Formats: sequence, structure tokens, C-alpha cells
Amino acid sequence: MSELNDKFARLGVDSAPGQEVRQQAVNLKLRGANLEGIPVDFSHGDVDAFKPVPASLETFVSGFHEGAQQAYTEYRGRGSIRHTLAEKLAAFSGAPIDADTEIILTPGTQGALFLAMGANIGRGDKVAIVEPDYFANRKLVEFFDGELVSIPMDYLASKTGSGLDLTTLEESFREGVKLFLFSNPNNPTGVIYAHDEVLAIANLAQKYGVNVIADELYSRQIFDEREYTHLRGLKTVNPENLLTIIGPSKTESLSGFRPGVAYGSARMIERMEKLQAIVSLRAAGYCQAVFADWFSEPEGWMTQRVASHQAIRDDIHALFSAADGFRVRLPEGGSYLFPLMPEIDLDILDFTKVLRLQAGVSVTPGIEFGPQFTGSFRINFSQDHEAAVAAIQRTIEVVNRYRV
Amino acid sequence: MSELNDKFARLGVDSAPGQEVRQQAVNLKLRGANLEGIPVDFSHGDVDAFKPVPASLETFVSGFHEGAQQAYTEYRGRGSIRHTLAEKLAAFSGAPIDADTEIILTPGTQGALFLAMGANIGRGDKVAIVEPDYFANRKLVEFFDGELVSIPMDYLASKTGSGLDLTTLEESFREGVKLFLFSNPNNPTGVIYAHDEVLAIANLAQKYGVNVIADELYSRQIFDEREYTHLRGLKTVNPENLLTIIGPSKTESLSGFRPGVAYGSARMIERMEKLQAIVSLRAAGYCQAVFADWFSEPEGWMTQRVASHQAIRDDIHALFSAADGFRVRLPEGGSYLFPLMPEIDLDILDFTKVLRLQAGVSVTPGIEFGPQFTGSFRINFSQDHEAAVAAIQRTIEVVNRYRV
Repeated sequence: MSELNDKFARLGVDSAPGQEVRQQAVNLKLRGANLEGIPVDFSHGDVDAFKPVPASLETFVSGFHEGAQQAYTEYRGRGSIRHTLAEKLAAFSGAPIDADTEIILTPGTQGALFLAMGANIGRGDKVAIVEPDYFANRKLVEFFDGELVSIPMDYLASKTGSGLDLTTLEESFREGVKLFLFSNPNNPTGVIYAHDEVLAIANLAQKYGVNVIADELYSRQIFDEREYTHLRGLKTVNPENLLTIIGPSKTESLSGFRPGVAYGSARMIERMEKLQAIVSLRAAGYCQAVFADWFSEPEGWMTQRVASHQAIRDDIHALFSAADGFRVRLPEGGSYLFPLMPEIDLDILDFTKVLRLQAGVSVTPGIEFGPQFTGSFRINFSQDHEAAVAAIQRTIEVVNRYRV
Repeated sequence: MSELNDKFARLGVDSAPGQEVRQQAVNLKLRGANLEGIPVDFSHGDVDAFKPVPASLETFVSGFHEGAQQAYTEYRGRGSIRHTLAEKLAAFSGAPIDADTEIILTPGTQGALFLAMGANIGRGDKVAIVEPDYFANRKLVEFFDGELVSIPMDYLASKTGSGLDLTTLEESFREGVKLFLFSNPNNPTGVIYAHDEVLAIANLAQKYGVNVIADELYSRQIFDEREYTHLRGLKTVNPENLLTIIGPSKTESLSGFRPGVAYGSARMIERMEKLQAIVSLRAAGYCQAVFADWFSEPEGWMTQRVASHQAIRDDIHALFSAADGFRVRLPEGGSYLFPLMPEIDLDILDFTKVLRLQAGVSVTPGIEFGPQFTGSFRINFSQDHEAAVAAIQRTIEVVNRYRV
């Protein structure tokens, strides 16, 4: 049992986004008075500020009324929905998808990621992940008893592209990495991988026969009309070695329905379905219905949504850029921003607690994205615009109070 | 990778309930013409025949309109819902529940089972399961690298209670079993454990310090006003060693929302939440709302529902009892019936295919519930009454065609 105890001891969730309510009160030496303002929870997007895709509730209700055929689907999801989605996602990503064998519907994109990692990671297998990247990646490698190999990404120094260290990546592939996982746009920095970087990843994966999971959750929310390169669209990697995950939980605000999808390698998806059969059987049947509204939003709706997020990004980025001692990269896609603070007298976990207590602002500590990010925090700026700007002003003021 | 290959090779789903659509056409030597009749899928209940709890859709819609607080809940589920449910389930099971620490909402009861097994099974740990019992139990032990210990249940010979072999159970506990999992009412036989049996399990678990997962998914659907004993209600086992799982997917027909729950041991639930954080984050937020209608059904609704199932059970049991060569135990609870056929010229997998082809009837092969059940199949009789009776008549006719 001690191995199991260790495993769960490492699987912390107290600082995970949305879990702050479970933290215990602690003795913190507070400086200054509390700052008034509308509380903002930057740990995830606010679906009250950015409402779900119009008609998604009506689509759900129609699915409910379809009865048994919508309630009990194949474990990989209802066939008719898979067929429609396969067409849309093939057009989006630039490579074909067989609806019978190459796509699976999952309980959220988290569900897709869990099943994909479980399908690929054997005990002791080397798995390369980027740092910083999505906080669950590291935990999943540990849960499935893989051996973690970190690939640094110098997102603050890089001007074009992510700053991924391709030399270290190739070295890790040469030394036996079985699986490489990365998010694009990157979570938590909002960086988009340049075409050349995606091509380099593709060539390396193909050269060394490495499996790749491309987490493209935010790939529909790209700012400044930048170029976005789908790894699978390059058609360089053997399709059986590549899986792409995505879902309408973020930009489209459908998270409350928990819809997610993985597509690509039939071999991986067959395993993922076997695993889904014992994990949760299927994505909630009635909720699968809302996939119909995805990639079928009203004309102009997505454009407006991306523009609204870009406007918030600009205002928040300007505040951090003007603040003394902060370093921050302008997000190119997605709803995350990952500032590096000037040096303060609090460790990052205490800082997030102080910030919540004194300013009503919740952020996710940088160490969730890699142990070295002790001076950074992540915000999800999919929030009410004015409230978010005011909350960032309070955040900067709190940081200034605790400067060394 | 070979260990991983082996693991997934064992995790078959082609014969799992609801997956029949994925089976390949095969060469079967058919005897006689096809039998006409309304097709019946006995692999799971028919929510068109037994509709979801009234108002569940309206409750879901209200949850949707609550917005962010319902979409993004704690990983263990929304606090207000946990508090209401804890009260109801404490009253139902006869022992208190702390809503903050002793209950978690999950994606279906399958989700609860997966998390519970993952929280308890370390590599090489001995896990005792009953045979026959729910088909995922065995797969979960294998997936988490546990060592399976089978405890036989002589459900056909026993007249009162399940026929669980308590001597073998104690022997397994003495030899180091860490975890015991059992469903009550039993899936697939519909047997209810007698009070003395539940008490014996409780005493053995407490004596040897074994953790227990009690799967009580069908415990609200008890026939003939029989006595039902909740293990936790006995207050014999250390509460930290006992977890109970249940959900409104079956009798209440809410499966399309995927609601499930586990309650009991705070230690196990803390681990389960950590695991849920990387598996699917949470049960779909909006779907959590429908828990409000559970244990709050309109007056008389549950009584009527149980009576309707009992009537179908009686008719189907009578047909099997009258048919030459069948052996079947009268289900005492739940919607399953598990007949043992006379000897036939087909193996059980071919039989299920022939039955579907010739009679439009889907059943689940007995070997899903234990490798020795090569002559049995499971039916879920939560179906349209007339169609189910006719389908069983066709089933018996097909069996007779293939007798040795």
C-alpha cells in the first residue's frame, strides 16, 4: 500500500483551479487593509460573463426527448454525432477522420486526456511534457507510473513561437521517450507554436516513432489573426501515432455539459473506449446532444467572442506591462495569461491565499504548471471585462505590498 | 509496453452491454427461420418504457439557468447538493454522513466504482470479488494491477440469502485480502443478501481490517417487501473502511444525466476526489442539479415503479421456470435475471449473436460476470412489459433449436 499512499500524496488538488473553497484558514501576516471590489475567480472562465453557445440548452432538451437512443450510446459516443463531428473536425484540422474508428466522445477534454494517457503509458515508460504546461499532465504521468521527462519552453525570451527547446526534445526522443504531450495554444502562457516548431515536432516524432497527444483545446480562440498550425494537418506523423484532443468547454462555454473529444489514431481510440467502459461508461448521453451546436455557432458569434477576449487580454496585459517588475508574454491564443511577479516576501501558495483574502481575487499558483514556476500565477481572463481589469489592478497593488 | 498491451488485450468490450453494434458479422450455422417480433435490447433498461423521474428535465434546466455556480463545482460536487443528499442517504442507509468529507458526486455509479477501486487498489493488492457479480469488477481489479480473489456465490442452490461462500471469504481475508467488493442486490442474479450474511461480512471485515465497497445501486428496487440490510447501517465496520455506492441511473431512469454518488470513508473520498480531478474534473455540472429530484419522487411513484418491475419479473420468471431444462432464481431486487440454459450446440458468445440475428433479442453473455458462467446470460427486464414477454418466448424457442 505504501506505493499507493505515495501516489495519492503527490496527487494534490487543494491548489487546483476551483478547489480553493477547501483550503484551511492559515496564519498569514497581512499587510494593509482589504481592497474593495467585485470578487473575481480567475481560476477558470466565467460562464455568466460569456454565456454558452446560443441554443445549446434547447439542443440538450431535444436530445433528452429523443429518449433511450440518446441516453444509452456506444461507449465511444452516439454514431450519428460522431459522424457529424468527424466531418467538422476534419475540415478544421486539415486531415480526414473515420467516424467509426477515429473519434471518441468523452466527459470533457479532461476525460479525453485521461483516457489518452491511460491508453499510452505503461509502467516506467518515458513521457515528455512541456514546462510550463497544463497542470494535470504531470499528475497523469505519475498516476500511470510513467517516467516524466521535462522539456523546457522559454516563453518569456522567445519572440516568435513558443520557445520550446527542440534540442532537449530530440535528445529525449533519442533516449527512448514513448509519448510526447503538449498543449497548443499553450496553457498557461497563451503562446502559439510557430509553424516551424510544429513541423519540427512532427519530423522528430516521425523520425523516432514517438506517439504524440496534441491538446488543442483553445485552438479556435486565436488572436490578431495569427497563423495556427494543426500538427495532424501537416500529415507528417503516422496517423496511428497521433491523437488530437479538443472540446467546446472553453471558448464556447459549454463546460457545464462536460463535452470533450479525441480524434486520430484508431489504435489509441480503441484502447480509450475500453478504458472508458470501466471509468464512466460514456459521456453523459443527453449532454452528447449539444455537440451538434459546436462548429455551427450563429454567423459572427465566434468572431465576436474572440474579439471580446482579445480586448480583455489587451487591457490586462497593458496593466502588467506597466507595473514595475512584472514580466509577461502577450497571449496569442486562449484565455490564459501567466505573469512572473517581482520578488515578494510570500511563497506562491501563501500569495494566492493573501490575494484571495485581501483582494477577492483567485488565481492558480505557477507551481501547478511546473515546480520551477514559484514566482508566477495563471489567470483565466474569460471574465466580466470591467471586473477583471479592476481585479488585476488590486492584484498588482497586493503584490507591491509584499515586495522584498 | 508489453504489460500495457496485455492489459488492454484483457479489457474487452465487444460483449459488454450496449456495445453489440460494434461486433463483426460472423459465419454462424443458423437453424430455422427468423422469429418476428419487436426487438428488445435486454442489455440495459429501456428509458422509453420506464421514463425518467418526473420533472428531472425541468430541474436540469433550472440548474443550467443558475449559471457558473452550477457549471463549475468542486470536484466532489456542489456543496449545497452534497448537503441535501447526505441527509437523504443517511436516512436511507441508517448511519450519518458528513456532507463536507463523506460524500462525492461522480459521473454515474460506474464513475464512483472506478474512483473507489483506484483509491484502494495498489499494485499486487489482493482484492476479493464475488462470482457472479458486476462485469466491470474483475476488469477494474486487473486495470489497477490488483490480484483477483474469487468468492463463489451458489445463488441457484441457496433458498434464503445469496449463497455467498462465507468460509472462502474468511479464508481470503485471513490470507491478506485488502478490499472486498460486492453488489447488493447482486448483479446479475437479483439476489438480496440476507441480514445474517451482511452481518457476517461486516464482522469479518472488522475482524481482519478489510476495506469494503458495497455497491447498492439497486437497493431502492426491492420486491415482495423483503428485508434489505445496509452494511453501513449495522455500524459494525469502522466507517473509515467502508464505502457505499449508489445512483439514480436505474430504477429512476436518470442514466442519460450520468449521476452517481459514493459515501462513507472520508479517507477514500479524499483520494477519489484527487483522482476525479485528473479523470474528468467533476460530474457534469448542470447534470448534478437533477440529484435534487432523487429520494424526492412524487408520492407513490417509486411504489408504482417497483410494482411494474415486479410484474414483469413474475411473467418472465414463469416462462423460464416452465421451459424445459432452464434453471433460474427468482430475482428479489433490481432489474436483472440470470438464467442458466440447458446444454446447447453454441458457445455463449455465438448464442448471443444468433439470438440477436434470429429473434431480435440482445442479452449479455454470462462470461462477463465470471469465466465459469458459460451457459448463462443476463437480461435487464426494465422493458416494455409485453415486448419483453414476447422476446423471452422467442429466446426460449431459439435455445430449444440449438439443444444438444
